[in-house]
Amino acid sequence: MIFELNQRLRADTFEVAVLDLSLLLLMNDKTAPWLILVPQRQEIKEMHHLDKNDLAMLAEEITLVSCLVEKVFVPDKINVASLGNIVPQLHIHIVGRFKNDRAWPGPVWGASGAEPYDATEAARLIERLKSELKI
Amino acid sequence: MIFELNQRLRADTFEVAVLDLSLLLLMNDKTAPWLILVPQRQEIKEMHHLDKNDLAMLAEEITLVSCLVEKVFVPDKINVASLGNIVPQLHIHIVGRFKNDRAWPGPVWGASGAEPYDATEAARLIERLKSELKI
Repeated sequence: MIFELNQRLRADTFEVAVLDLSLLLLMNDKTAPWLILVPQRQEIKEMHHLDKNDLAMLAEEITLVSCLVEKVFVPDKINVASLGNIVPQLHIHIVGRFKNDRAWPGPVWGASGAEPYDATEAARLIERLKSELKI
Repeated sequence: MIFELNQRLRADTFEVAVLDLSLLLLMNDKTAPWLILVPQRQEIKEMHHLDKNDLAMLAEEITLVSCLVEKVFVPDKINVASLGNIVPQLHIHIVGRFKNDRAWPGPVWGASGAEPYDATEAARLIERLKSELKI
């Protein structure tokens, strides 16, 4: 089955890279360094429904992106989550959190105050992230 | 370094089992089937700081507990998250969510309306979980 990115995810993010298993997306919210991995497996809604090889790849990609967020943004904490209560397509949030961010210490999901990037900011940040990933 | 469970986690949960890597805890909130894995690695605060073997074990234990929650509670969705904005000791939430639960479709963290189990309910549920885990 051909993989197609969920429309809501497509509308809310920029594409950063295509990794071995997942698309790597940047959430269009400049108040937090917020990346999203979307495994390219069309019908899967839960992490534990991935097969064993895919799950191992996803664990590696979560580690890769967590290290990327840690290096580029130096957050106080990284939040990693697979929720999917609103968007059913399996996707994993990796969000750098700061003690003075808009939702701390609460979760970012559902919190108010998101702000879109302007186009230049987004393009510059995506280039920076690609460069760190050596893509 | 000897592992010691964070006091806040201890106060808010019941112990269900000691797995190969993690303690398995049940959050004392009967409004959601809410389990927590705590890898027994004293100083680790982020998943990606676990060594490769531990991370692979954690991925297996997350899968085990997700399957357990799916089988016992038959939720509409499973939420898996490593947050740690309040409790710094690494811990992973695995929460069965229902479309009519107290926080749907928002996250459970920070949402109001949690209710403790009574002692009999908790003991019965822990026995059920142990029995499914064959522990």
